[in-house]
Amino acid sequence: MNKIINKIPDAMDKVKEKNPLTHCITNFVTVNDCANAILAIGASPIMADDDAEVEEIVEIADSLVINIGKLSKFQIAAIKKSCEYASKTNTPIILDPVGCGISKLRNEITIDLITNYNIQAIRGNMSEVKAIARLLEIDLSNNIKGKGVDVSKDDIITKENLSENGEIVKKIALKTNSIVIASGPIDIISDGNLIIAIENGNEMMEKITGSGCMLSSIVGSFLAFNDPFIGSITSSLLMSIAGEKAREYVNNKNLGTGTFRSKLIDYLFLLDSDEIISKGNIYLIE
Amino acid sequence: MNKIINKIPDAMDKVKEKNPLTHCITNFVTVNDCANAILAIGASPIMADDDAEVEEIVEIADSLVINIGKLSKFQIAAIKKSCEYASKTNTPIILDPVGCGISKLRNEITIDLITNYNIQAIRGNMSEVKAIARLLEIDLSNNIKGKGVDVSKDDIITKENLSENGEIVKKIALKTNSIVIASGPIDIISDGNLIIAIENGNEMMEKITGSGCMLSSIVGSFLAFNDPFIGSITSSLLMSIAGEKAREYVNNKNLGTGTFRSKLIDYLFLLDSDEIISKGNIYLIE
Amino acid sequence: MNKIINKIPDAMDKVKEKNPLTHCITNFVTVNDCANAILAIGASPIMADDDAEVEEIVEIADSLVINIGKLSKFQIAAIKKSCEYASKTNTPIILDPVGCGISKLRNEITIDLITNYNIQAIRGNMSEVKAIARLLEIDLSNNIKGKGVDVSKDDIITKENLSENGEIVKKIALKTNSIVIASGPIDIISDGNLIIAIENGNEMMEKITGSGCMLSSIVGSFLAFNDPFIGSITSSLLMSIAGEKAREYVNNKNLGTGTFRSKLIDYLFLLDSDEIISKGNIYLIE
Repeated sequence: MNKIINKIPDAMDKVKEKNPLTHCITNFVTVNDCANAILAIGASPIMADDDAEVEEIVEIADSLVINIGKLSKFQIAAIKKSCEYASKTNTPIILDPVGCGISKLRNEITIDLITNYNIQAIRGNMSEVKAIARLLEIDLSNNIKGKGVDVSKDDIITKENLSENGEIVKKIALKTNSIVIASGPIDIISDGNLIIAIENGNEMMEKITGSGCMLSSIVGSFLAFNDPFIGSITSSLLMSIAGEKAREYVNNKNLGTGTFRSKLIDYLFLLDSDEIISKGNIYLIE
Repeated sequence: MNKIINKIPDAMDKVKEKNPLTHCITNFVTVNDCANAILAIGASPIMADDDAEVEEIVEIADSLVINIGKLSKFQIAAIKKSCEYASKTNTPIILDPVGCGISKLRNEITIDLITNYNIQAIRGNMSEVKAIARLLEIDLSNNIKGKGVDVSKDDIITKENLSENGEIVKKIALKTNSIVIASGPIDIISDGNLIIAIENGNEMMEKITGSGCMLSSIVGSFLAFNDPFIGSITSSLLMSIAGEKAREYVNNKNLGTGTFRSKLIDYLFLLDSDEIISKGNIYLIE
Repeated sequence: MNKIINKIPDAMDKVKEKNPLTHCITNFVTVNDCANAILAIGASPIMADDDAEVEEIVEIADSLVINIGKLSKFQIAAIKKSCEYASKTNTPIILDPVGCGISKLRNEITIDLITNYNIQAIRGNMSEVKAIARLLEIDLSNNIKGKGVDVSKDDIITKENLSENGEIVKKIALKTNSIVIASGPIDIISDGNLIIAIENGNEMMEKITGSGCMLSSIVGSFLAFNDPFIGSITSSLLMSIAGEKAREYVNNKNLGTGTFRSKLIDYLFLLDSDEIISKGNIYLIE
């Protein structure tokens, strides 16, 4: 574990030094938060999704984030073209399978991307991750659908289901040869070998839109110049500790989710690796 | 009046207990605020508008909000398909006729939706509501166009024109068999029988984009499991009292509309039914 | 210089009195910030980009802002139609060539708009402005590409390169017969005759998305009823002094970019001409 934690400062420094250009093809609901999250950690966002230019954008970009939160046939064409080009040029691809499990369209694009392109990391809530497990025909004891794009209540990661969910995450990582991040009050991250839990999240993250999308976006920035497992862990710690501090701020002042959203970005901007390491509640499940 | 007010706590509890999945087909300007407003009151948003999946989304959704703020031919196809499906499955539909009156396109879609689908509630500013009255050939003494998507100065609801505007709102409600909400510094709500005024709004609501769209969105969440008249009244009280508190906060600290926007969401999250009932300035016009 | 500064109060008053309806065809990343910025200074935004209605919207609008931050073939059709109509009706057009230089698509639309329509003002970062200089075959000593939609580090306007960059800005203004605004920590504005520098910007403006887009949007509102050079200078002063005050607020409280973004809009709303004139660090380069 210490071997991993010791690499966090360097991962954060690299983002701030190299300002990776993070190309996001994403949804219009949270796109502004994603751009501001990427800027807050020291990287640069670009949100282009017209198929007439996506190859040129991937060419100058350092990583590519695909978020399927609001698909259209035009965006799907741009997604495929950009993933094709990113796979060819070894540009890391990060997939956020928003709402996977709730429509055929989302299931089809998810399985297509996982199967045919070189995806380095997948980040979803536990309902979406279970939907992927089903698509990949990995055995599942239960069969629960997400609440739209939010996690279903029965799928929220808790101490009690941590080990069971950890196994699912690991199996997907193994089968897809990628890092899988299931985020929630507890995050689970696996590279197909280790399973790591991060217990810094809080329920207020689910009370704003975009906390998951923002995490996927900064994973994109972190994976540009870092080992994908270290980059994913650092992203998850950063986002969930920013969330803890934002909740603390809001609770102290008796404010709500509007302020929470601004403070979350504030702390993404302010947090340094010392504070992340000292506050990080991270441990191996197996 | 007390009979109505006594039902507010239950309406709010139902949203928090049942977390209605509120499907919004809406514009890209205020979509993030709408999602955060829905989450703040305890419901779940989903913003899908590709016609390849809208039927599946309506299927799992508890209500459907149609906002015509930034139409395209693709969105119109998705709007019709989803309204068709929602009408068939008795999913409540809420219409926000943004900018009705300023273009043929907006007039056509508005009249089409009102005429051919089972709309439960319509929420607009008074310029948009008057434009609908014209489309429905309800007699009008004046003939004023909205200022783009904002209310025209001459259409702002005041004490002086309250009775006249109340009649227009009631006539539309009667003719369309839906709840009509004209919002502004004073809100007017009618079910075609009663006309109710809510005097908790303030001019700062017009100084940010999205206060109207947010209101329509939470009407969507409230109508999923509540009587539509009670749900509309509760939504209107909640939004306008949140606006009062946000303005008070901002004025006390000498801040502006950027902070106002965050605080508005804060108070949507924090307000309980006791405060809403005690602060609500609500009365019957007739 | 005093002749220019003396006209600022009147320019600001005109926006607040006439509430110009500012029609923006823009990107989905920062559209909400643009609408709120326009409202904060006292104007009205409308963000319509379907070609079925853009002519009617231009007809009622007082100015047209074209931002190419997230193009699609459908938006391009709407852009051309609206620019055609605006040129015919003498509606001021403001161009924000977001990401010009990074793709053929963006270069083509930029040169097309500059060449074929009556553009009154162009606002970009120095990388975008240099890309335009190249497209117009104005001689350039170096040849640097923007960092996606952000300015490249080598293109940031500083005291050292101010005179050289000022010449480029002036040459474009002369050749295109429009006002050119290159914004950054220092802004350069030229009407093809004078070159003016405004030194009120700060590096935090680049740490949020949308500060450039917002500036272009309020230039749109200011150009509706004002002399374009005065309107551009006033917009630039307003935005950069709002940025100064927002940074001061955030630094005093040890907060970050999330709060900075809200405060920027607050100060756009709060600033008056006295404070702008007293704080404005504005001077002639030549």
